[in-house]
This record gives sequence, structure tokens and C-alpha cells, in this order.
Amino acid sequence: MARVTVLGASGYAGAIAAMLVHRHPFFGLAHVTARGEAGARLDDVHPRTRVPLELESYDPDAQSDVDAALVCWPHRVSAPAVAALRERGVRVVDLSADFRLRDRGIYEDWYGAHGAPALFGSGVYGLPELHRAGIAGADLVANPGCYPTATLLALAPLARAGLIGDVVIDAKSGVSGAGREPTATTHFISADENMTPYKVDRHRHTPEIEQELAGLGAPLTVTFTPHLVPLAQGELVSCYVTPARDVTEGELTGLYDDAYAREPWVELRLGPPGVLEVRDTNYCRLSVHQDGRTGRILVFASIDNLWKGAASQAVQNLNLMFGRDEREGLL
Amino acid sequence: MARVTVLGASGYAGAIAAMLVHRHPFFGLAHVTARGEAGARLDDVHPRTRVPLELESYDPDAQSDVDAALVCWPHRVSAPAVAALRERGVRVVDLSADFRLRDRGIYEDWYGAHGAPALFGSGVYGLPELHRAGIAGADLVANPGCYPTATLLALAPLARAGLIGDVVIDAKSGVSGAGREPTATTHFISADENMTPYKVDRHRHTPEIEQELAGLGAPLTVTFTPHLVPLAQGELVSCYVTPARDVTEGELTGLYDDAYAREPWVELRLGPPGVLEVRDTNYCRLSVHQDGRTGRILVFASIDNLWKGAASQAVQNLNLMFGRDEREGLL
Amino acid sequence: MARVTVLGASGYAGAIAAMLVHRHPFFGLAHVTARGEAGARLDDVHPRTRVPLELESYDPDAQSDVDAALVCWPHRVSAPAVAALRERGVRVVDLSADFRLRDRGIYEDWYGAHGAPALFGSGVYGLPELHRAGIAGADLVANPGCYPTATLLALAPLARAGLIGDVVIDAKSGVSGAGREPTATTHFISADENMTPYKVDRHRHTPEIEQELAGLGAPLTVTFTPHLVPLAQGELVSCYVTPARDVTEGELTGLYDDAYAREPWVELRLGPPGVLEVRDTNYCRLSVHQDGRTGRILVFASIDNLWKGAASQAVQNLNLMFGRDEREGLL
Amino acid sequence: MARVTVLGASGYAGAIAAMLVHRHPFFGLAHVTARGEAGARLDDVHPRTRVPLELESYDPDAQSDVDAALVCWPHRVSAPAVAALRERGVRVVDLSADFRLRDRGIYEDWYGAHGAPALFGSGVYGLPELHRAGIAGADLVANPGCYPTATLLALAPLARAGLIGDVVIDAKSGVSGAGREPTATTHFISADENMTPYKVDRHRHTPEIEQELAGLGAPLTVTFTPHLVPLAQGELVSCYVTPARDVTEGELTGLYDDAYAREPWVELRLGPPGVLEVRDTNYCRLSVHQDGRTGRILVFASIDNLWKGAASQAVQNLNLMFGRDEREGLL
Repeated sequence: MARVTVLGASGYAGAIAAMLVHRHPFFGLAHVTARGEAGARLDDVHPRTRVPLELESYDPDAQSDVDAALVCWPHRVSAPAVAALRERGVRVVDLSADFRLRDRGIYEDWYGAHGAPALFGSGVYGLPELHRAGIAGADLVANPGCYPTATLLALAPLARAGLIGDVVIDAKSGVSGAGREPTATTHFISADENMTPYKVDRHRHTPEIEQELAGLGAPLTVTFTPHLVPLAQGELVSCYVTPARDVTEGELTGLYDDAYAREPWVELRLGPPGVLEVRDTNYCRLSVHQDGRTGRILVFASIDNLWKGAASQAVQNLNLMFGRDEREGLL
Repeated sequence: MARVTVLGASGYAGAIAAMLVHRHPFFGLAHVTARGEAGARLDDVHPRTRVPLELESYDPDAQSDVDAALVCWPHRVSAPAVAALRERGVRVVDLSADFRLRDRGIYEDWYGAHGAPALFGSGVYGLPELHRAGIAGADLVANPGCYPTATLLALAPLARAGLIGDVVIDAKSGVSGAGREPTATTHFISADENMTPYKVDRHRHTPEIEQELAGLGAPLTVTFTPHLVPLAQGELVSCYVTPARDVTEGELTGLYDDAYAREPWVELRLGPPGVLEVRDTNYCRLSVHQDGRTGRILVFASIDNLWKGAASQAVQNLNLMFGRDEREGLL
Repeated sequence: MARVTVLGASGYAGAIAAMLVHRHPFFGLAHVTARGEAGARLDDVHPRTRVPLELESYDPDAQSDVDAALVCWPHRVSAPAVAALRERGVRVVDLSADFRLRDRGIYEDWYGAHGAPALFGSGVYGLPELHRAGIAGADLVANPGCYPTATLLALAPLARAGLIGDVVIDAKSGVSGAGREPTATTHFISADENMTPYKVDRHRHTPEIEQELAGLGAPLTVTFTPHLVPLAQGELVSCYVTPARDVTEGELTGLYDDAYAREPWVELRLGPPGVLEVRDTNYCRLSVHQDGRTGRILVFASIDNLWKGAASQAVQNLNLMFGRDEREGLL
Repeated sequence: MARVTVLGASGYAGAIAAMLVHRHPFFGLAHVTARGEAGARLDDVHPRTRVPLELESYDPDAQSDVDAALVCWPHRVSAPAVAALRERGVRVVDLSADFRLRDRGIYEDWYGAHGAPALFGSGVYGLPELHRAGIAGADLVANPGCYPTATLLALAPLARAGLIGDVVIDAKSGVSGAGREPTATTHFISADENMTPYKVDRHRHTPEIEQELAGLGAPLTVTFTPHLVPLAQGELVSCYVTPARDVTEGELTGLYDDAYAREPWVELRLGPPGVLEVRDTNYCRLSVHQDGRTGRILVFASIDNLWKGAASQAVQNLNLMFGRDEREGLL
């Protein structure tokens, strides 16, 4: 058994991460922390977790008597906490953006100054389907953003095959993606029966998508536009690819079969996926289509933004880091 | 005053059309028909209409003692009814697809044999913002599909300016777009907390969009993909345009201002539109953006699929056909 | 024409009140005020109103050049504003609780000290179906709470007939009833797919219900329990009456027919009402049933909490105060 | 390991029952059947189950090579299937109403002729919190209805203590309670943003509630009224009890603590429960309150209608029947 701390367990992703660790056959949940709600029990703040632990105030010395930590804090405040944990020998999966990018100029351009420059770039990008081997030996894993998770799983087979000439990514997310803070946007009356594009020109998940596509051999500038839709959890990305060359439907199918037929958490389907099919799971559902009229390749991928897009993928990474079956505790 | 019949008033669009005619200062609602529910009162079947008329069985002789008809029937069954009404001198707005297309081969390819070949192609395409003059004198107006309405309003200024090199249209619609018939898809448990792409390769609104874009000087093959989202009424189209040439933000803004500043039913906005803002109205809300990183032009348009996408646009057309202010009865 | 000011037009009820006055054939909207959003246009804050007026800071001298005011402020802060308006000769419909109760001890027990003691008790209780004559001549009308509106319409015929031995009122409201402030309760993720009883022992609408029932000859202590349900607008009260004496179904039907057959805004139905049927309207829908097994009388009433439960009822009252048809501007 | 058949696995409750058996450490899923969808795989029909078994046509001989069966068929058609399974020695949990009632006249009055008269009344009522011992040795367990489950858990401590003078039960259920068949009622457009009372005078769960209350020493005629609310899974019962005698808050609390403090699947709370807190679980959440003004006792209970109200309670019963920990496979 390995002991795990979850920092930021009062947020949506943090609470699910704590729940998954708590239920896990191999990992044990040692601490949960929360800034505003320290002293409350997690199962009072988030009843569905049924985790009867008290939320603690953050104190790296108090919470480092563990083998690993899941850090569920916002970008920029996460980095110093990760550094403190690493100094104390704790292996970390960081759910913020702080260790996802490898180009510091790009990080600063999109996020501002980094909170732990000495560690910048030292994280392994924690998308197991792309970086399984690296994750296995890593002490610091940068859990991907929710949109990049779905998008990269959708596009990786095409990127590797050099097939992406150009791509438009139209993404749709449920309201939990906007976080737990009550705002005008997350008010029921604003979100219910509504849908809206947001951050139209510049969403922070863009450079992360481009970095990883480039790593797969497809250095592209992508158009990525998220939309808010009236549901709690679920994310769908619709990818419209102008192919770099002619491709047959058989070749397409082959590329996706080769990539995913043996992946435990990717479900390849003939028809387009819905988000309800992956709700509360670590699955990504995918379908690939060719538009006979325009030649464009359409790829749809659905995930639960709080699970495969955050908390359960963090546990999948933890499984890999500790040499466990990556499905453990997630089925 | 002019008397109006609404055929197919038990469907969602038909019921709203009947309600709008019933409330209209100039038009009077003479008849409402329904296949399955003849004998029931419309305000029992659709309480929100508050139309206390009895639904009649369709009989062209019984319902032609009027000046105009709104035909809210499905494609292919609509055409013969339209023909019967026209023979009796009734002016018609047809909400089906039967008179929207001008190329008979294309119609047959997407819909099958036409139900009134003699009338084929004789309708004016009823998008007032594009064809106001033609509608004014018309005896037969083909009310546009919901997706083409939003898409064409979004793209018309770019099409006229020769700016569209290529375009991807990602469309999202509420569940009322799937019609009133209870099916596995429209079941609350299937649609609630879900979203899914549908008719991925071949949605029937595609040729209609292409025909009208061509008419504006932009003969294109477009990628059009609709998605079902969990809300009742509302439609958002996200258009991703690869420009045919360089264009400045000022030029873009100018094109849209020129096109829509004086349009009573188009609201041009700086930020992206939500569908709730146009719910239960004849408005289309639009925003245009330029992606500084890719140069792509993004246009978002939201409408209520049952109103501007169907029933209220039909009344807007009726207003024009009878020389009334096109806002009459719709504010 | 009469000029009207709406104070607190940035709240949900205030915005609808402003919209209804703006569209009204007889009333003209002179001013709209808002604390936090002064300077913004109402149609930017609440697009669906399409009211192109700028929100002003509250200043009784600046906004009293009118014939009437709708005050959409919270209890206790409303009373002084009402007093200031009355001193300047403005007729007022107050949507807060400040002038609904006639017993000052009860007011203070439930709300605390009153903000304009000299005016306490001088308002007419603005439920037109019960107090039409008094409203017609009034200078100060206290618009009822949303729950009392539905409950009193449901129970009035029984109360007048001395039929209520005991009553349990189980009420359900959409989320807009919780107001526009973003809170943990109104967050989409808390309300969506959820329902919860709230203020179980002591909801402030209770004394208002009891006062009016007593006025109808039924001095009772009632059990009233509200629940939050996942929809935007709509309220349903389910009233379970233990009859004081035996009653036939025919007598029951007769009581409700006598009370409501000629009421323009009450719809008596055989089957139980849904809230969607009255959405965005001033209607109250009612059904009365007798449980053959227990003898209990069941009355269900549905309203739109923001319309008949607040804003449109305020305009109905305004119509009566100014001698207009009480349906004017509301159909 | 024990082998289990699930009949009717294409319905909502049946699919979840199959999923729970499939994941269970002790039980193994041998067969799943479905009338209309035989030949399809369950994980195609209900993706969230991830059960890769093919749905079979019902044939008692083919599906009786098992130790137990969960029968998820409608009342009246269930009884003969249960009889056929029992004849073949299969232990059965029946989710229909066919074996819940012990008075045949009452059964026939509410449901019509019984489909297996020889077995009538031989089932143990499968509410473990009330009949744990009887269930343990039973060969035929009648799984309770969803409303009776929540209502009886809410009222049992009061019934046993002789405290219920009279009771009104106002129940609210999500749309899955209406079943999987697409109907006008279950259409998204009918249910979304709506709520309505239904089966106002006579819901079939009433006699079941009364039978069990009588068994606890409280022979009552109850008022029970269900309402449909716009969410997928979740049920809340609000019970309004006129006490038979005076009772202190301390006594009340004591009764509920005694009843439920050691129950694994009942969560006693101070504040009123929401349905989201028990979604996708076997928990029932309860709170008890005393209305200081009227003396009435208020008890609220929430469950997931498809889980504790059907499928997971069936597995809880199966655990008891086979001598397993009743939490096994459900946490």
C-alpha cells in the first residue's frame, strides 16, 4: 500500500480524486486539504465522495508523510506546493497547467511568471496513451487539461501519420469545467437552457494541444474554440481535419485500430459518441468519419471532464508511476 | 385583416405559428389542422399557445376560405398540400424543404421524388434578410431550415465579399429540433446531461446552405455537422472560415455593420451570443471574430430553432407578403 | 399614458417588470435603477428584456418624476424607498414583504425592525383575485410573495366555505426563486439533477399565507414546506386539506367554478397542472381533487414564480390602480 | 461464486441490476434477456453498464442454469416467469409488484388477476432494513417499489412507536421512474423545465405502503401523491405526520438513531437531504424535523429510484439471501 495526499480536495476534481484514492485497493488516502473549508469533513462538503476525512489546512510538513500527492490547485499557486512536496521526496501528479508546457516563453505568455522555475519543464506530460513509458518512471507528472486530453486522443493517430493539413477543434463542455466558485456564469439561471462559445480567441489549452501535436510530428497552429453547454459533467470535442494528403477510409480505420484497439480506456466506435456514455468513468469514446463530399476527416471524442479530463486520469497516472495495472481502482 | 390557415398545428413549429397568427394584429387565425389530434383543442394539446381553436382534419376545400396558409408538414407530404392550396388561390408559406431547392436533381438526391413537380422551384427562399424584395411579391415562400437560417445570416456578409475560402460549420441544437414524436433520441433519459453529434456525414440542410451561398457568389462545398444538446429550444452555429484573402478586423466589422445595422431581427454583438438571449424570439444574434494566431474568421450565430428557425420567420415572411411591417406581431 | 419607474431592475423580477412596463400600451418606462450595475444598459444585463435604457443609481429625487413605481428591492431596504416615493406623490407597487403583513409584531418576528414604521400596514395586499376593489383605489400595493400567490389562489374557495380543517402545503420552486446572487445553492452543479427541501421549519411566506387565510375566514396554523427543483422558472404548490366537514365532489367543483370561472388569469383544469403550461405568463393553473380513500381534498396550483409570483402580478396591480383592463400589456 | 440471470435487462433498472451483478465479487452474470432487443449486446444498448453480454430471448429452460435470478419485468407478466424459475429451483428477487402484497383482493383491485396464483403471497417483502431475517432464508423476495422504499424508511421508526396519527406523503421522482418507453410524458420537451403531479388519486404504490405500515403497527389510510420532476434519477419523499401524541425532539431523534445508526445504507442527517447526494448509490438519506408551530413531524427521505429504489436494493437482497455482507458489490 502507498499513502497519498490530495491537495485541493474541496474542488470538483480534487474531491473525485480523493474519492478514487480512498476506494483504491492499493493506495490509501492519508490527507485531504482545502483552503476555505479546512475543519469540515469531505463527505459533508462533497457527500457523493463518502470520504469521512477532515479537510486540513495546507502545510507541506504535515502532509508529506506520504508516498505520493495529487495536487488539485490552480496554475501558478500549484508550482510552489509541488516544489515543496518534491523537496520532501513525495512523488507528484499535478493537475494544474504548471508543468505541462516545455517552452518557458510560451508558459509565461499564457500564464505569467512560473511559481517554481527550477522545476519548470521537469514534468512528464501525463497522457498515458501517449507517454506511458515516461510516466512509469516519473516523479512528477503533469496531468493534462481536459480539452487536450480529448483532443489529443482524437488527433494522435492522424498526427503521427502526417495526415493533418489543418484542423478546427470545436469543443463543448459541461458547467463543472468552470469550477466550483459561484459566478454569474455558473449560476443555474445563466447556464440552464443556454449554450455559448467562450474564450473565443485564446483559451489556455491551445498551446498544450499544439505542443503535443508537434511532439507527434504535426507542428500546427490550431483553431480551438470551447463552448459551455447545460450539463454537469461531460466534454465533447469535434475535430475537423483537412487532410494533408488523400486517405482511404480503410487506412483511417486502420490507424485508429492500431492506436487504440488495446487501450483499456479508449473506446473506438462506429457512430459518434455521446458524453453520457462516459459519465463518471475514465473512458474516452472516439469515432472517426470521412466526409465524402469535402474529403475532410471528422473525429469526435467524448470524456468526463472531471474524470478522464482530470481526477481519474490522475489516478491512472498514479497507477503507472507505482507499477500497478493502470485500470486498478477505476473500474 | 387577412385570414390564415395553419396546417400541421400540432407539431412544435406549427403550434407556435398558430399562436403568433392568433395574437397578430393584422392576421386572423381561421383554421388549425392536425392529423392525429383532430377534434382536440389546440390549447389542450399545446397549452402555452392559448389558442382556443379546435384542430381540424385536413381538407383543402374546408380550409381554403383564407388569404394565406402556413404549411407545417414534413417534406414530401407538404408539396401536394401546397399545390392544392395554390390552386385555390391561397398564398402559402411552406415550412418544409419542398420548395427551398432550385435544382431538382439535388432535391431528389437528398429527399427523393417531389410531391408536386409542377410547382418545383417556384418558391422564393424565405430568408428576408437575403430575399426581402422577392418575398414581398411572392405567392409561395419556402421558409428556410433552422440551421440554414442561422448559418446563412452568419456567412452572408463574407460570402458576398468573396472572403470564404473554406468553411466548417459546427451546429448545436436543442431537442425540439428532433420533433414531437417520442423516440429513443427524444426520451428525457437519452437527451438529459448528454450531447452527441448526429447525421455526421449527410444532414439535409447542407444543400440548402450551399445553394444560398452560391447565390451570394460563394460556390462552396461545406462541412456541416449538427449536434444535439440538452435544452428545449435554441440553436447555435459556430462557423470557422478560412479566408480567401487577407482581411483586417476593421473590414470585417464594416461588412457586418453594413449588412445588419438596419436589420430589425439581427443583433450584432461584440461577444459571442448565447441561445437563451434569443429564446422565444425572432432574433438572430451574431458575433464575428478573427483568430489572430491562425487568421481564421469565426462567426457565431444563435437563434431559437422553433421561432426564427421556423414559426416566427414564417410570420415575418407573411408580414412581407402582405405589405405589413415585418416586425408586426412579433415584438 | 402614465410614467413608471422600476427600482431594482437588475434582479430577475425587476428586469421582467421593466420589460412588461416597457412593452405596455398605456404605461411608459421612465427609469430603471440598479445598485451594482448602474451605468450599464438593461438589455446588456438582461438581454431578453430588450429594454434599451440605462440603469441609474437610486435617487428618489431623480426618479420621482413619474406616476408610479414598481419597487423590486429586498425586504427592509424597500420600506424607506417606498416612503420616499410616497412622500413625492408616487403610487407604488412594492414587491418586497414590507407592506404585506398587517400585524407589526408578526412582521418583526419574521423580518426584524421595519424600515418605515409610519407606513406600516398601509398597503393593500395585492392579490387581485382576492382584493380587486381595494387595489383599484390604492396608492400603495404590497405585491404578494410567490408561494402565497399560488397557495392562496389554491385555497381561497375552501377557506371562504369554511372547509379547511387542516392543511399541509408542499411547495416546489425553480431556481430563479433563490435570486440572482451567485451562491453555492444557485450554482448549476448544486441545482442540476437535484431537488431538496429548504427552510423546513420556518419560511417567511408562512405568516403571509396565514394572514390572508384568516381574512377569508380560516384562521389556521399551516405547515408550509418549500423545495428547490432543477428548473429556471415555475412554482407548484400541492395543498393537502383535511376537510372540516363532509363535502361532495359537486360542491367542490362548484366552489372553484364560482371563484374562478370569470377570472382572466386563473385557469381551472380537470387534470393536475404543470409549471411549463404557465411559463412566462401571468396565469395560475389550478386543479382540485378529492381522495376517495381518505376524504382529503387535494389542490394543485402552478404559476411562474417571476411572473404571476412577482413581476406580471405587479403590472396586473398597476393596471387596476390606474383603471385599466387588468389584462392590458400581459397577453 | 453464484451464477445469476437478469430478466428484462434492457429496461433502466434491469440494466443497472445486470451491471451490479457483473461487477460483483461473488455473483457472476450468466444471462441477460430482453424482449425487443435480443441479439444486441447490453453495452451497446446501455453503454454505461459496460456489460459485454448478448441479450437473449426469454426461455426459462435456457436461463435456469443459475443459482438466482433478478426479474425486472412489469407486474402481471413477471409472476409466470417467477413461477417458471422457482419450479426449476432458481432463487428469485422479483422487482415487479407481483409478490409484494399479501392480500389477494387488494392485489386484484389495484393490478387485476395475478399471473401465478399458487405463488401469491409467498414472497418476502425485500426491504432489508425491515425484514432482514426473513430475506436471509427466502427463495423468493419481492423487491419493494421505489416510493415505498423511501417512504417506509422515512416512517418506520414513527410507525413502530405508534406515533403516526395521520400522514400525507408528497413524493417527487425523476423521469427514469416513468420507464424506458418513449411517450409524450417522457419526451424531453414535455419533462424539461416542467413538474407535474400525476396519478393523483390512485398510485399503485399506496397499498404497498399501507400494508407495511400496518405490519409495523400503524394501520393507516395514507394520502400519497407523486410528482414528476425534471431530472433523470432521484426520488424524494416529504412525509407530513400529524403525531398521535405529544413527542419531544429528543424522543424523535432517539427513535431514528435507534433505527438507523447501525444501518449501512441509511444516512441520518440533520439537514434535509437532496437527491444528488444519493445518485448512483444504494443509500437512503433521511432527516426528521418537528414543526414548532404546528407540532407536525416532517420526515424527508431521498434515494436513487433506479438503485435503492430498484436495482441495487435487489442486489442487497441477493447478498442477504446468499449469506454475504449486504454491502458487497455495492460500495
